Amino acid sequence: MALTSWEQTAAAKRQSVLNAIPEKWRIKGPIPAPTEQRDVTGPYIQQFLSPREVEITETDAVGITERTTTGQWTAVEVTEAFCHRAALAHQLVNCLHEIFFDAALETARILDDHYTKTGKPLGPLHGLPVSLKDQFHVKGVETTMGYVGWINTFQGKTNDPRYLTHESELVKELRAAGAVLYCKTSVPMTLMSGETMNNIITYTHNPKNRLLSSGGSSGGEGALIALRGSPAGFGTDIGGSIRVPASFNGLYGIRPSVGRMPYEGAANSGDGQNTVLSVVGPLSPSARGLILLFKTVLGAMPWLGDPGVLEIPWREEIVEETRKLVQGKPEGLAFGIFYDDGQVKPQPPVERAMRIAAETIKRLGHKLIKWEPPSHLTAASLANRAYNMDGGADVLQNFALSNEAIHTSVVIDASGSPQKTALEIAALNVEKREYQKQYLDYWNSTAQVTGTGRPVDAVICPVAPHAACIPGKYATIGYTAFINVLDYTSAVVPVTSADRRVDVVGKEGREYFGELDRKTEGEYDADVFDGAPAGIQLFGRRLQEEKILVLAEYLGEEFRKASA
Amino acid sequence: MALTSWEQTAAAKRQSVLNAIPEKWRIKGPIPAPTEQRDVTGPYIQQFLSPREVEITETDAVGITERTTTGQWTAVEVTEAFCHRAALAHQLVNCLHEIFFDAALETARILDDHYTKTGKPLGPLHGLPVSLKDQFHVKGVETTMGYVGWINTFQGKTNDPRYLTHESELVKELRAAGAVLYCKTSVPMTLMSGETMNNIITYTHNPKNRLLSSGGSSGGEGALIALRGSPAGFGTDIGGSIRVPASFNGLYGIRPSVGRMPYEGAANSGDGQNTVLSVVGPLSPSARGLILLFKTVLGAMPWLGDPGVLEIPWREEIVEETRKLVQGKPEGLAFGIFYDDGQVKPQPPVERAMRIAAETIKRLGHKLIKWEPPSHLTAASLANRAYNMDGGADVLQNFALSNEAIHTSVVIDASGSPQKTALEIAALNVEKREYQKQYLDYWNSTAQVTGTGRPVDAVICPVAPHAACIPGKYATIGYTAFINVLDYTSAVVPVTSADRRVDVVGKEGREYFGELDRKTEGEYDADVFDGAPAGIQLFGRRLQEEKILVLAEYLGEEFRKASA
Repeated sequence: MALTSWEQTAAAKRQSVLNAIPEKWRIKGPIPAPTEQRDVTGPYIQQFLSPREVEITETDAVGITERTTTGQWTAVEVTEAFCHRAALAHQLVNCLHEIFFDAALETARILDDHYTKTGKPLGPLHGLPVSLKDQFHVKGVETTMGYVGWINTFQGKTNDPRYLTHESELVKELRAAGAVLYCKTSVPMTLMSGETMNNIITYTHNPKNRLLSSGGSSGGEGALIALRGSPAGFGTDIGGSIRVPASFNGLYGIRPSVGRMPYEGAANSGDGQNTVLSVVGPLSPSARGLILLFKTVLGAMPWLGDPGVLEIPWREEIVEETRKLVQGKPEGLAFGIFYDDGQVKPQPPVERAMRIAAETIKRLGHKLIKWEPPSHLTAASLANRAYNMDGGADVLQNFALSNEAIHTSVVIDASGSPQKTALEIAALNVEKREYQKQYLDYWNSTAQVTGTGRPVDAVICPVAPHAACIPGKYATIGYTAFINVLDYTSAVVPVTSADRRVDVVGKEGREYFGELDRKTEGEYDADVFDGAPAGIQLFGRRLQEEKILVLAEYLGEEFRKASA
Repeated sequence: MALTSWEQTAAAKRQSVLNAIPEKWRIKGPIPAPTEQRDVTGPYIQQFLSPREVEITETDAVGITERTTTGQWTAVEVTEAFCHRAALAHQLVNCLHEIFFDAALETARILDDHYTKTGKPLGPLHGLPVSLKDQFHVKGVETTMGYVGWINTFQGKTNDPRYLTHESELVKELRAAGAVLYCKTSVPMTLMSGETMNNIITYTHNPKNRLLSSGGSSGGEGALIALRGSPAGFGTDIGGSIRVPASFNGLYGIRPSVGRMPYEGAANSGDGQNTVLSVVGPLSPSARGLILLFKTVLGAMPWLGDPGVLEIPWREEIVEETRKLVQGKPEGLAFGIFYDDGQVKPQPPVERAMRIAAETIKRLGHKLIKWEPPSHLTAASLANRAYNMDGGADVLQNFALSNEAIHTSVVIDASGSPQKTALEIAALNVEKREYQKQYLDYWNSTAQVTGTGRPVDAVICPVAPHAACIPGKYATIGYTAFINVLDYTSAVVPVTSADRRVDVVGKEGREYFGELDRKTEGEYDADVFDGAPAGIQLFGRRLQEEKILVLAEYLGEEFRKASA
């Protein structure tokens, strides 16, 4: 059967991305089927790389910049190694939308020249390759955001002078800090999905277990970084889109509060929906990698380039205070915890990750209290009404540009329902604020039960009911979207991986919360999920990024030791 | 003719406010007509007060707390003096919606007891009477916000348990700091007006010239503080509602950026409209009074009680930096300035205030550059579309509660136009963000011309085309609403007063920007306006409150010397 017009356009774009991979970096011969070779990280991808390339690409962002800012490694060598590995990653799991290795190498050469001439790095990210979700505009590079109708346009607009010329604020700031930009990563169409699929790159699989999803919507970032095709990158999160891929890929990621990281000049879905906002945040294999990126962007004073960014610099005093609490001074830390959201019980690997987290915290001598906040169901309802307030008009406009087919994993209502009116939206905003107030009051009230004299320092909970997920089976945003409604700070901390031997559904019957709970348990298969990473969420109040990052670093290290 | 039902309800409420004034504080005999006695401040109101009451009430907030926090003045004596003076003020210009002197004196007694027992003040505002715009809820006191339909209800809801029991966050924080709450001040129906009028208290006149308006919508605050019936109070501002009354009454006032002062638990108009937000801010006869209130509220960590407040404490380091710039270190200050908005030229008193400001700044050796930003017309259009996005549905619902008559000075569209849809609102939000970005870029670009190596430190401009205004003749929000669209920090600094001898319209013809410009000039009458205060606006970027407050204090003192 002949391809339709949009299928041809999508196929051509798909091919052009592959064509951008130099011949020398193409995988010769067939790639084994996922059933034969699930895990393509570690030894599998290393077979295509030199020992030196493996050494470079398996060093974390902090380790790399320690070397590139002191002349031990050149930007060109580091860039080439990551370009090579990113090229392999894309061939293995379809994680890239844009490849611009030539421009990256040119940047790297300029950075090396700068270092040779001045003896100094250009900035704190000198020579560090940084990957970007395909919402950020980079000069000379397209942004399709997974829409076939955006190919050859600026966000769907033909003959727009910004096409291939516009650059997002974050991109400018990363360049000024010495970062090397070299690729943009895959997203699901509409960005509203816990998986990553579109008609251009098809589906982004989980590198640790290619039977499963890499998560979404920053799924390309998650997959690429898991394969060490990038040491760190930036995604966005409106309902879990940084945290889900971080967790599914065994990475750290942070969803900061609105106004800390610059979104200015980036493409988005439902742009102008002002009730529950998407935010930018980093993903990385190390917590200190997140800190490096976060601190560097704030060092660029992004509030001078983005009117939406708050003038809150990196607060080292909060870092110091938190480190003291970590050391048990004066009275240690207190964490809230909840194991399920009362709707869908997590599958066994996530349940075990939560148990490891809880036991570790107790063993370290910190307080752990049961978290019983205002219902997260209310938050999920608020989030869904916010996402769908235009009745799908925005995404339908973008689909109509090419008439492409809509994937079923899209969680936004694309049926063209009636739009909300101004009064309805105002009522939604008031309802959201009231929920936020109730939650804040609950948070404060825990000072009565923590024993530290303070409310909880942070709360621990699952990221999703599943460790990764079977394509098409993403269950619920109930564990993540409440954070976006509250505008709280939430980091993902890796804990363990699914293990077919121990992560089995209990033999005895249990009470189910409802149909979705039963269905989600039924979809679990210890054999299929084997190897899928499972992380946990660690969240704090609004604008608590410094504290949560320090706690993520601390707990992440302890979890690693506990599950080793 | 018999009164209609809503007229009776309004009259009864009006009388109940007057009834709350103790007999001993009622003005005996007739109050002269405004044509006979325009100015009721200073000697006029002093005739009803004892010398000691005059001494207390004409001390500013900082002077008062210096004495009340050290036991020199008791809270009871200070409170009684202000209650007395506020009672007089209301009888002269209709500036109060609620009077609760008994509760205030009870609070004052408790504060005095506390001081006697502990030898310490309760907090930094110990014993300071603070007035509140009638949007804030105080236990035991109604909030009508100028709606007849809100009488005997909680925000129009009958049998709501919050009626007479609910307290706004700001109110709680003020109490905890030791403030004494004793009255709530008048607002225009809908809050959307540059004057203050409603069917309950009728019209709030300008105490310096009762032929004119006290401004709006925080017009009761402006009038009360001008009469020294309050040393400091809180208003709100969505298009100029703190700045206009501050300027019309010769006061300092600040419209901070969204998220610094707590709005939680206060009544509002068009609540949930999220595009251009109303904010809370203080008014006071002294800049240091504003600083005291602002700093005290931040000291209460309002972000723990209001999810909309940002965790940005009072930044003393910015105060220090700004003071150094004031002293010419390293290279002094640079100000932008514009004398008119290209739509309506200010009337002569405002023109002269602007000249005094400009000459003072130049004389002090600071840089002054012509401010040529992205058009403020765009901002005014954005603001109007935001205010009217529900087609007046919110205010019409509130009018319908009593069927009361709508005053013509209401600037919101109350015609029941079609509401905007979600997509239209999203487009408006995007347009606003783009405007904010253009403005920020322009601001940054002035670093090229200031000669200080930095962009301008602040910008000077009129607050309105008129010094106060003739009732029903408020011309335009073009000088104020752009600040709300940008979410910038803007303070009003008093400069001078209209003088019939010098403030005359030039004899020679001039070019007019348009019909409104011609009309506004035509409405000016040097004799009628004589005595009306004229201030200027001093604005900085978003979240620059500390800097702008320090500059307001500095320039205010210099303007005072210059116009003395």
